Amino acid sequence: MRLLLISNSTMAGQPYLEYPMPYIKDFIGNQPIKLLFIPYAGVTVKYDDYEAKVKAKFNEIGHEIVSIHHFSDPIQAVQNAQAIVVGGGNTFALTHQLHELGLIDAIRNKVIEGTPFIGWSAGSNVACPSIRTTNDMPIIQPKSFNATSLIPFQINPHYLDAHPEGHGGETREDRILEFLEMNPKETVVGLREGCMFRIEGSQIQHIGEKSLRVFRHKTEPLELNSNENFQFLLK
Amino acid sequence: MRLLLISNSTMAGQPYLEYPMPYIKDFIGNQPIKLLFIPYAGVTVKYDDYEAKVKAKFNEIGHEIVSIHHFSDPIQAVQNAQAIVVGGGNTFALTHQLHELGLIDAIRNKVIEGTPFIGWSAGSNVACPSIRTTNDMPIIQPKSFNATSLIPFQINPHYLDAHPEGHGGETREDRILEFLEMNPKETVVGLREGCMFRIEGSQIQHIGEKSLRVFRHKTEPLELNSNENFQFLLK
Repeated sequence: MRLLLISNSTMAGQPYLEYPMPYIKDFIGNQPIKLLFIPYAGVTVKYDDYEAKVKAKFNEIGHEIVSIHHFSDPIQAVQNAQAIVVGGGNTFALTHQLHELGLIDAIRNKVIEGTPFIGWSAGSNVACPSIRTTNDMPIIQPKSFNATSLIPFQINPHYLDAHPEGHGGETREDRILEFLEMNPKETVVGLREGCMFRIEGSQIQHIGEKSLRVFRHKTEPLELNSNENFQFLLK
Repeated sequence: MRLLLISNSTMAGQPYLEYPMPYIKDFIGNQPIKLLFIPYAGVTVKYDDYEAKVKAKFNEIGHEIVSIHHFSDPIQAVQNAQAIVVGGGNTFALTHQLHELGLIDAIRNKVIEGTPFIGWSAGSNVACPSIRTTNDMPIIQPKSFNATSLIPFQINPHYLDAHPEGHGGETREDRILEFLEMNPKETVVGLREGCMFRIEGSQIQHIGEKSLRVFRHKTEPLELNSNENFQFLLK
């Protein structure tokens, strides 16, 4: 299985998809391919416009990409894909549509067979067992919170420590501790912006300058750097 | 119908439930009553402990309060309540439990009959048509996102304008605009911390020093002060 799971598309103040493209290029390789794009997390952007933005970036690194919304049979589009790319946006909108179209199993089966999977933000959430650690607003109710379970742990993308001054709402850590209280057997990784996981078969690598934060029930959170061994996450 | 819908329990740096208690006191009145507390939004706090914290504050203003988790028949507890108080915490945990126990309709029917309802944070979310404008992490999947529909519009509690510097994630306003794109007929009110709505029959009043923000699809958001007329929200 080959996965590139990215925290966020864009660093504040930088152009769209700028920082992750060298890693995406390295992950895909030099042989030009045509990737399948899944734009369903886009809510305030039209699918055509979302595809055009993403296509411009993939063309720069020598690859073609086409959005699944052009296909009359989306399951078959997944089955024929050379690689699958799931863009960010609203995780509930994305998951709703994946369930409606029967794509959860289609993507899972295809990626298990070896087709590379790239996701950022909401796209990384749906590689997890469920979407229960998304930061997004539940703007639509999906049939189920279950996702593709390509990895056995939960990612919290855009993980951040900052909390608006004088604000009484929960911190991100508070929210994850609530998740663990309700789901004590699970592991959550706070993946900070500018960071990603690259998974190649049984190997997992964390890429990025920031550390990541691992949360388990009734255990002090672990703060780990990219040079640590993350194999324990795949067990 | 009598509702007091509060954005947040506590202002940063202040004691628990300090700022809203004078308004709660005024809303309940001087005649000592015994209120029913619904603690199901509490996840990292035990229900007994949550009840004790809330009870201490209600005792200070001369009222008794008992938590629903002590009753063998929670529907009957709602039917017998003199007033209903729904505390904050995680909106998904709260909504899951309300659906499991058949309390959505029980609360709705009881409050429509005239029993006063007080909620803060998650407790205000469940007075809305649905929980689709909560800020909380979806740590558990409720049977439905539908809530009690005591009011016809959506509240976003803890509404804030601040966004952590250098963070690439969506702002609160971005999230609400996504909601409206998917639910174009609905109205969302961003209720800032320290603020609340008091509804008495067909009359609605906004209380608090901050303005509130009203969002509708394809309409410039309205920034309104407490002295404005909010009747349009109940239509």
